[in-house]
Amino acid sequence: MIKAGIVGATGYAGAELVRLLAGHEQAQVIWYGSKSYVGEDFASIYKNARGFTREECKADDLEKMAEECDVIFTATPQGYLGSVLTEDILKKTKVIDLSADYRLSDIPTYEKWYGIEHKSPQLVEKAVYGLPELHRDDIKNTDLVANPGCYTTCSILTAYPLVAEGLIDPDTLIIDAASGTSGAGRGAKVPNLFCEVNENMKPYGVTSHRHTPEIEQELSLAADHQVVVNFTPHLAPMNRGILATEYASLVQSGGSFPAMDDIRAAYEKYYGNEYFIRILPAGEMPETRWVEGSNFVDIGFIIDERTHRVIMVGAIDNLVKGAAGQAVQNMNILFGMDEKTGLTGMPVFP
Amino acid sequence: MIKAGIVGATGYAGAELVRLLAGHEQAQVIWYGSKSYVGEDFASIYKNARGFTREECKADDLEKMAEECDVIFTATPQGYLGSVLTEDILKKTKVIDLSADYRLSDIPTYEKWYGIEHKSPQLVEKAVYGLPELHRDDIKNTDLVANPGCYTTCSILTAYPLVAEGLIDPDTLIIDAASGTSGAGRGAKVPNLFCEVNENMKPYGVTSHRHTPEIEQELSLAADHQVVVNFTPHLAPMNRGILATEYASLVQSGGSFPAMDDIRAAYEKYYGNEYFIRILPAGEMPETRWVEGSNFVDIGFIIDERTHRVIMVGAIDNLVKGAAGQAVQNMNILFGMDEKTGLTGMPVFP
Amino acid sequence: MIKAGIVGATGYAGAELVRLLAGHEQAQVIWYGSKSYVGEDFASIYKNARGFTREECKADDLEKMAEECDVIFTATPQGYLGSVLTEDILKKTKVIDLSADYRLSDIPTYEKWYGIEHKSPQLVEKAVYGLPELHRDDIKNTDLVANPGCYTTCSILTAYPLVAEGLIDPDTLIIDAASGTSGAGRGAKVPNLFCEVNENMKPYGVTSHRHTPEIEQELSLAADHQVVVNFTPHLAPMNRGILATEYASLVQSGGSFPAMDDIRAAYEKYYGNEYFIRILPAGEMPETRWVEGSNFVDIGFIIDERTHRVIMVGAIDNLVKGAAGQAVQNMNILFGMDEKTGLTGMPVFP
Amino acid sequence: MIKAGIVGATGYAGAELVRLLAGHEQAQVIWYGSKSYVGEDFASIYKNARGFTREECKADDLEKMAEECDVIFTATPQGYLGSVLTEDILKKTKVIDLSADYRLSDIPTYEKWYGIEHKSPQLVEKAVYGLPELHRDDIKNTDLVANPGCYTTCSILTAYPLVAEGLIDPDTLIIDAASGTSGAGRGAKVPNLFCEVNENMKPYGVTSHRHTPEIEQELSLAADHQVVVNFTPHLAPMNRGILATEYASLVQSGGSFPAMDDIRAAYEKYYGNEYFIRILPAGEMPETRWVEGSNFVDIGFIIDERTHRVIMVGAIDNLVKGAAGQAVQNMNILFGMDEKTGLTGMPVFP
Repeated sequence: MIKAGIVGATGYAGAELVRLLAGHEQAQVIWYGSKSYVGEDFASIYKNARGFTREECKADDLEKMAEECDVIFTATPQGYLGSVLTEDILKKTKVIDLSADYRLSDIPTYEKWYGIEHKSPQLVEKAVYGLPELHRDDIKNTDLVANPGCYTTCSILTAYPLVAEGLIDPDTLIIDAASGTSGAGRGAKVPNLFCEVNENMKPYGVTSHRHTPEIEQELSLAADHQVVVNFTPHLAPMNRGILATEYASLVQSGGSFPAMDDIRAAYEKYYGNEYFIRILPAGEMPETRWVEGSNFVDIGFIIDERTHRVIMVGAIDNLVKGAAGQAVQNMNILFGMDEKTGLTGMPVFP
Repeated sequence: MIKAGIVGATGYAGAELVRLLAGHEQAQVIWYGSKSYVGEDFASIYKNARGFTREECKADDLEKMAEECDVIFTATPQGYLGSVLTEDILKKTKVIDLSADYRLSDIPTYEKWYGIEHKSPQLVEKAVYGLPELHRDDIKNTDLVANPGCYTTCSILTAYPLVAEGLIDPDTLIIDAASGTSGAGRGAKVPNLFCEVNENMKPYGVTSHRHTPEIEQELSLAADHQVVVNFTPHLAPMNRGILATEYASLVQSGGSFPAMDDIRAAYEKYYGNEYFIRILPAGEMPETRWVEGSNFVDIGFIIDERTHRVIMVGAIDNLVKGAAGQAVQNMNILFGMDEKTGLTGMPVFP
Repeated sequence: MIKAGIVGATGYAGAELVRLLAGHEQAQVIWYGSKSYVGEDFASIYKNARGFTREECKADDLEKMAEECDVIFTATPQGYLGSVLTEDILKKTKVIDLSADYRLSDIPTYEKWYGIEHKSPQLVEKAVYGLPELHRDDIKNTDLVANPGCYTTCSILTAYPLVAEGLIDPDTLIIDAASGTSGAGRGAKVPNLFCEVNENMKPYGVTSHRHTPEIEQELSLAADHQVVVNFTPHLAPMNRGILATEYASLVQSGGSFPAMDDIRAAYEKYYGNEYFIRILPAGEMPETRWVEGSNFVDIGFIIDERTHRVIMVGAIDNLVKGAAGQAVQNMNILFGMDEKTGLTGMPVFP
Repeated sequence: MIKAGIVGATGYAGAELVRLLAGHEQAQVIWYGSKSYVGEDFASIYKNARGFTREECKADDLEKMAEECDVIFTATPQGYLGSVLTEDILKKTKVIDLSADYRLSDIPTYEKWYGIEHKSPQLVEKAVYGLPELHRDDIKNTDLVANPGCYTTCSILTAYPLVAEGLIDPDTLIIDAASGTSGAGRGAKVPNLFCEVNENMKPYGVTSHRHTPEIEQELSLAADHQVVVNFTPHLAPMNRGILATEYASLVQSGGSFPAMDDIRAAYEKYYGNEYFIRILPAGEMPETRWVEGSNFVDIGFIIDERTHRVIMVGAIDNLVKGAAGQAVQNMNILFGMDEKTGLTGMPVFP
């Protein structure tokens, strides 16, 4: 039985880890870390967990957790793990970081977009960007997984094969996405109150959202040159779900534009054997309701013959494939288990 | 592997059965019955099921299903099963009916409240009312389970121990409940459109809702005399969940009213060993969010010293403990399996 | 032009006052009071007001407001006005208090339920409980209106005629109500976050909600004896609206119970000429969507012949008739204007 | 008093016309046309109208309406008005068509995108596209106004000045929009049920939505050449509101790209005097909540220096500026009234 510790267990992503691990046969949460609720029963904060655990929330103590846990998940704001992680800790345990601290391989890019100094830059190159569908083999051999962001998981996976195969011009890529409000976290802030979010659609972080460089990093790998994109997130009045609608110009080859079959072939090449990616049949587009509660990524696409663009759409549950589910998937890989363990529940609808 | 057939698989309750059985290790759906979608892939209607089944929807054919299935779930409008079920079918298979046809042991009561003639009254006495927490032993020995209604499951379980122990006067019982909109079914009706339900609370079926006699039947058994109650359902702008707030006058015994400890003792007596019933600590009240997606019933209570009434509150997921989950629980009992099989997922929040 | 000041203009009730007064031909807001946003443009906080006002938020200064304003609305937490109001201020201006400080004529009751000492008990008897449909004449002659609570407005008006006419036994009265989340205010608290409220129904303040004594005070006046009731509020996942479902036993007279016509006659007697009260035809029940954005109270009722109870249902918009709209109605009365001025917009649906 | 008739008064757009005209001092609805509810009181269908009208719904009879009404609003599916309108009718009354029948000046384009034959092509050139901010003078002199679509109103107004001033390359324009569900109409269809829409974001009509040629028609006028755009609508889980996020490449002039001030100057040039258009200050972006219930268009923008694109965002209430409000605005122009009459209410929040 793998002993897991969670730093930030009482945030939405942390609590989703608790839920998923409760259904995982080979792992068990033994440390419910929380900054705000130390000494309180976890199940008195997240009452869905009543009957599943009697553990109290404990303060964060990475050193001690490293002694007791086989794996530590950090579901914290950026800057936390970067400032406390050491090589010594990584010798004792494996770490899956749900924050952004080790996602960007270029330190100046991290410091510019996040506006904070990176306190452990020497560990960045040890970290593997934890998108299993792209970096599975590297994940197997690391002790430090940088679990991708929610928007980025959806945005990257949706565009990656077409960029990698040269079917689209990555510099024309525009990503317009909407997220449920759990993505904004459980902090008590006026903009996240029910009455402020309900009956509202709003854009935010336009041109400046921190997931932008993360998307660009991975798509640049695919394109084999530095890519710059527009990414615009929106807050939607729902709990869960991310939908990313992406636009890019098709690249002519031999005088003609790629056809639907070419696009499909590219997706099949990269994802044909991926359990968690469901490529939709022609004429269908993803909707967030069909992936809710699950680790699936649904991807659909259509070519606009009038503009010679392809419109790609991806949908995930931001708390599962966009956070806790992907973290469990990474844990499964790290420990040599079946990657699907604990993640095979059918999405919940309605 | 138990072979299950579902009549009405493309309604919300039927589709929830599909979801729950997909996670059940010892049962498998082999017949996806549907009136409206015959010949279409189930997973093209409920796209959350993509990757879980490639089966097409089939027309209802109870005779043929009886040959092929170990158990048949009927998630249909009232009147259907009553008009097609025969003793012959029950010799070949077990039937768990999610409609109201066999819930009421008194035929005239059924015919009065439902306004239809019962076509197979001779089978009613074979049926067992499928509330495992009250009738577990009888369920073990039947071939026909009348799966309780959603409001009734919540309303009955919340009041039963106090009625049975004589702590409250059942004739003062008032049940005020609210349900998510999945309880209204998937029929295309104007009152169930998003814009009609959203931003709205409405009562309906006041004094006339068909779950009333079902509640009265079970509480009369507890009271050992005929009980008459007020039950008022409301439609709430959410997908899932039922909350029942119940009021009753405490009964004096030896000159004093029951205290909180007496109430708790009664709940513990009846439900202390019930996995799916979570009796909340003093000062806490149930909320539907904490049971969403699960088979749990959360129950809280408080005494009003000013009015000598007890206010009991119960919460369930109407599609799980109020329909499909309870049906699976009943199936588990019918086939001698652990009652919790396939039903141990933690509630999903947020 | 009446000059109005608002203390607490940046709360939901205060901002609704701003909206309603923007459409009032004879009144104008000249003081946007706010504790949290002093010096910021009101329209930068409530951006719906962009183009309607360029005023900045000012600190609360009741003395100065009394000099400049013809009427002051206080949309603040309880305790504020009670601690700063003086007779001197009331000589200079009229005050409409949306808090609870002057609603309860019995000081010990106030201090017990609110847990705070009343700092100006001598002003309580000057105050008039501002439910125009019950106390219109007294309102005309006061300088201090205690604007009723949201739940109380709905609960009292729904039951009042039947209590006053002796048709129901007020000690059997049970009030089960649900409110939209704007009633919880704009404070940044975890329980009011979108993800905590959405997809959830929850009871709160069971047996202890502070609107209870307010309801009892007014219904005791109607009954001419001290009445004690059960009142249970619930939080519903919507922005606006209160629905109160009320139950009471009918009182026999001359050997028979009141009939539907008797009930209707009582409502007509009290409300037949009230513009803002819409008594629904037989067979119809109120829904919050039909009053949203308006000052209307919709009331429906039905007798349960089986239990000899009447079920009464009332619906209001908690921010309008439950707060700001009623405050404007009171202002109109105080200044001798048509009571409907600024309040004649049709409810907004959907 | 202008006598108004509405064909399709019981749809959402028609009912919003009823609401807005109830607050219009110089107009009155005298004909509530409805296909589904002939003979029923309008206020029994839309119960928010109780107390505002006692009129029954009447069948559509354009001839008779032309005799009795000064203006007819047609809030019907496409194809209806095109098949019944005659020059004779236009001699007797003015018509404001909320359907698409007369919006596209090019008949083949209409027939291709809508898949129906136009039955009165000779009337198309009489019609004026009713976007007052662009075609006010022409509207004054017509008898037939083609009221714009909801998405189109928002999409066109948001991009128009930048296209007209040559600041952006219109062929790079990508419009990604989300709408509340009232835009889908009141038809009883499964995809519009509460449980299907709630907790979901979905794209639809990708590359094929019928508002595309309408957007292209108006932006082509601005660009002075045929423009082709990508337009992707999404359904959001809310009642009202459209948010359009638009992306376009900036056009260099004299070796440099336009700056924020250039963009603002363009918006000010076209909309500086427009009451209903609110150009937001730098750093602010529109949200649908701030325009709900009103005829306002909020527009914000930002330049991405990394991609040399401008991101423009527009927000409207789809039922007001996107349908009924704009129709009233057009009526006001047609009859020489102040354009704002009946449309000056502050947006409703929350």
